[in-house]
Amino acid sequence: MGVGYSSSCSLSLSLPYSHISCFASTTTLLSSHKSTPNSSLNPPTSKFHYQKPTYTTMTAQSSSSPLFLPIQSGRVEEIKTQYHNSTKPISDFHSFDPELIQRLVYDSLVWSSLHGLVAGDKNVQRSGTVPGVGMVHAPFALLPMSFPERQWRQACELAPIFNELVDRVSLDANFLQESLSRTKKADAFTSRLLDIHSKMLESGKKEEIRLGLHRSDYMLDEQTKLLLQIELNTISSSFPGLSCLVSELHRSILNQYKEHLGLDSRRIPGNTAVSQFAEALTKAWKEYNNPRLDLIDVPYLFYDNEFTKLCNTHDVTTIRKTLAEIDAQGVLLPDGTLLIGNQVIAVIYFRAGYAPIDYPSESEWRARELMEQSSAVKCPSISYHLTGTKKVQQELAKPNVLERFLENKEDIAKLRKCFAGLWSLDDSNTVKDAIERPEFYVMKPQREGGGNNIYGDDVRKTLLRLQVEGSEEDAAYILMQRIFPTIVPTFLMRDGICHKDHAISELGIYSAYLRNKENVIMNEQCGYLMRTKVSSSNEGGVAAGFAVLDSVYLT
Amino acid sequence: MGVGYSSSCSLSLSLPYSHISCFASTTTLLSSHKSTPNSSLNPPTSKFHYQKPTYTTMTAQSSSSPLFLPIQSGRVEEIKTQYHNSTKPISDFHSFDPELIQRLVYDSLVWSSLHGLVAGDKNVQRSGTVPGVGMVHAPFALLPMSFPERQWRQACELAPIFNELVDRVSLDANFLQESLSRTKKADAFTSRLLDIHSKMLESGKKEEIRLGLHRSDYMLDEQTKLLLQIELNTISSSFPGLSCLVSELHRSILNQYKEHLGLDSRRIPGNTAVSQFAEALTKAWKEYNNPRLDLIDVPYLFYDNEFTKLCNTHDVTTIRKTLAEIDAQGVLLPDGTLLIGNQVIAVIYFRAGYAPIDYPSESEWRARELMEQSSAVKCPSISYHLTGTKKVQQELAKPNVLERFLENKEDIAKLRKCFAGLWSLDDSNTVKDAIERPEFYVMKPQREGGGNNIYGDDVRKTLLRLQVEGSEEDAAYILMQRIFPTIVPTFLMRDGICHKDHAISELGIYSAYLRNKENVIMNEQCGYLMRTKVSSSNEGGVAAGFAVLDSVYLT
Repeated sequence: MGVGYSSSCSLSLSLPYSHISCFASTTTLLSSHKSTPNSSLNPPTSKFHYQKPTYTTMTAQSSSSPLFLPIQSGRVEEIKTQYHNSTKPISDFHSFDPELIQRLVYDSLVWSSLHGLVAGDKNVQRSGTVPGVGMVHAPFALLPMSFPERQWRQACELAPIFNELVDRVSLDANFLQESLSRTKKADAFTSRLLDIHSKMLESGKKEEIRLGLHRSDYMLDEQTKLLLQIELNTISSSFPGLSCLVSELHRSILNQYKEHLGLDSRRIPGNTAVSQFAEALTKAWKEYNNPRLDLIDVPYLFYDNEFTKLCNTHDVTTIRKTLAEIDAQGVLLPDGTLLIGNQVIAVIYFRAGYAPIDYPSESEWRARELMEQSSAVKCPSISYHLTGTKKVQQELAKPNVLERFLENKEDIAKLRKCFAGLWSLDDSNTVKDAIERPEFYVMKPQREGGGNNIYGDDVRKTLLRLQVEGSEEDAAYILMQRIFPTIVPTFLMRDGICHKDHAISELGIYSAYLRNKENVIMNEQCGYLMRTKVSSSNEGGVAAGFAVLDSVYLT
Repeated sequence: MGVGYSSSCSLSLSLPYSHISCFASTTTLLSSHKSTPNSSLNPPTSKFHYQKPTYTTMTAQSSSSPLFLPIQSGRVEEIKTQYHNSTKPISDFHSFDPELIQRLVYDSLVWSSLHGLVAGDKNVQRSGTVPGVGMVHAPFALLPMSFPERQWRQACELAPIFNELVDRVSLDANFLQESLSRTKKADAFTSRLLDIHSKMLESGKKEEIRLGLHRSDYMLDEQTKLLLQIELNTISSSFPGLSCLVSELHRSILNQYKEHLGLDSRRIPGNTAVSQFAEALTKAWKEYNNPRLDLIDVPYLFYDNEFTKLCNTHDVTTIRKTLAEIDAQGVLLPDGTLLIGNQVIAVIYFRAGYAPIDYPSESEWRARELMEQSSAVKCPSISYHLTGTKKVQQELAKPNVLERFLENKEDIAKLRKCFAGLWSLDDSNTVKDAIERPEFYVMKPQREGGGNNIYGDDVRKTLLRLQVEGSEEDAAYILMQRIFPTIVPTFLMRDGICHKDHAISELGIYSAYLRNKENVIMNEQCGYLMRTKVSSSNEGGVAAGFAVLDSVYLT
């Protein structure tokens, strides 16, 4: 095994159904269910007056003492990067004794295997179809990532406001249809979702119990220390289980090695994503108020599902079905009750269904429509799903749009403060600027699934091509300010090997929202996901890097 | 993957140090650190008047409805066996709906991966050297094994008596040397242990703090329902961690499917082997009474080590060293203090060192002697180690020998009641009988490590060869009554596949013993290990079968 991100041995969390794979189209492990812009800086708007950071070659300083661990418990390999590191990181390469690293590596690998911090190994054929075989530890950072406490609190405070916003937007069918009207012409997948949405509108279908399990992703801009939103996930927010485990792993390591590391494990925030997601699902199940019903888990990830297990401890039965199986087995009663076999389905939890690849035939679309027609609580409904699209994110960032949905001016100001620059491609000034200075933009397609963002000179080329073609394809993209987060030296564990490299991080805040016709039942921040990615090139941001699970160390 | 035990894909719990492997010489996974006779019946002594059970071909009945699970979550394959099943088992093949089995299989595999019920996959090269890579679920039974409550209590009650017996015998150096005097000539490994033992005697070395983490293994004779001891492990008693997990898995499955299975999870005894072993190690560490000291873990198994982790939570630092590393790094101070690096070693816990393969050079023997000379608490000392040999087991079964060590007549009667027939090969009447009726005996070599027992016609051939040769080699063996336990239909999970087969079980009772010069500090039963093995042939007992981890369901 050589350098992680360029290796052929890239790992993937495996899905049990081979026709659905979250990770098929990307080499970046933890770009996960949602594509994420991985870096950027200095948008050319009046709002953003950052300076592009100076790139200095610091290989000589940071890489002068390569750290090889010759023992069997994994080895450390060094990867040279060229970013300047402007803040004091936890993992200062020079401050660690190689023997200490060796012990941390060994103990953390053993911890992972004992606590279910595991993933399917892509190299093992059956790992994607049978749980419990072909497992490898999930990739993780050896130590937590420092993060300023003020911005951490800010991100947590935003969670219930975004929850409320999603709910309000989801109820404004015209806003969704109008915002996505041009996208509909350019993006077949969004178009199909909108068709189901329209049908529900026409039939007068209303969602009285609404459940959202969201994750809002942020990066911290190095120059301004502003917390800027990357995207808001309203479907299949990934890794609530594994993210909790990494926080536990890091707390355990910090406790065990407190004399050597001098770090306080209490500075790692408690991560309760799993239990709170389970609580939300269980509350939704109770709210449906039927004595015999089940929770259906639509396609399903083996190694990140602690919370469906937790649901079981609350006497909720979970069944797992693919979209195709639901099409084959699902029956809708006249009163809206959804039956699978003889079982009444109370809650439908989507672990897939957010990408075109999840709908290989008409069967899957029929299943999606069938579920949407039913009275079961959908997590998410079509409306929640559409509210999470990038185009809606960009529309919400326009002046005076938030005011259509929220009354509280403080809340609106808080949301707006975390918005990065977002533009439609019919904004000709911005497109002109992006052609001239593409390094300050990311082009994001509507298409989900990660790894599809466009960076650097490709932004210019793509924009020019779209101008020449004059087609509707431009409506399939938005432009976003490129964020340049702090780059810090980090130890990244993958496939039993410790890689020493410079990396950036992205913070996802999970949140749960549940309401019925009258009341909000739950509206909470629920733990977090920290992902740390190698920043190995200043061409194309860090899209090419590999990502590992991490935790937050408050500073 | 076909039939488990004949497959090339046999699994092994991997050791991190490639030169030490507990499982190198056997295809039976859970025969573990100790060889175990796997079946037998009707010893030709007056004490045992059992009838050999009638073998009826019941393939037609039990195998008439092969149970194939065509889904991705593992499949069930049927294996035909020819034993008669005389008791009502939990896993009556006919009582289970295939779809229910499918759900149990899937959920238990996911549970395994989430809770560390994992092992190294032999097929993955690095699985033996790097933790966290090449993992597969540890083999386990899908459901617990029924076991009568009376015999369960009997086995638990025996634990502290055996603990006390081991301690007393270990103090009688002459008894150990005399009992093993002929074995010494025939078995080079035992000879080396005895040499160290003699040196300690000559130097007047005494062990004032004595720690034993034992496991006494039993089978239940089908005809008489007698609980008969197979062997007593005094070194490296394996699977305390994984056995606890399987009990938890089965409780979870019984709770989750209580309506379908109709089994009461409270009938599975609580399994606290891990926490009690950790407690004993920690108490030994405290007893050593040195403010700065460590616990040393001599070669080490990745996936069964919860309790070294637990020790860490008690502020005990554990370090892992191979015997060769201890030879290279260990320093003995004049006062008996053992140093590794600058660290004082308080407790030495052997996870290996019980088999010739663990001592590939003189370096390992020097390390063993160095540790024995030190004042560190050894788990086990050479004396405890020798007390666990088969020859000593056989000597203790002779008339009036127990009385040399124990005063309490009730205790003696309890121990004697669980002794199977055991004979030395210089007992010419027994050898004559074993040549005539080899099916009633097992020949057990001193050599440890599992898979070395001799069954059936091989007993006759080996005994005849030894008679012709007239060498001392006969002293390397003992003869033991062959026990014939109940055979029950079982679902066995291995490598993601559910095998439906007939199986037998062996119950190991863990126990911990700790004392200083004045007092017994701990003398307790500590959980259990249930191993279930395929009984696929009546040739050679079940030695050829594969074994899985199981739990007890009290009936």
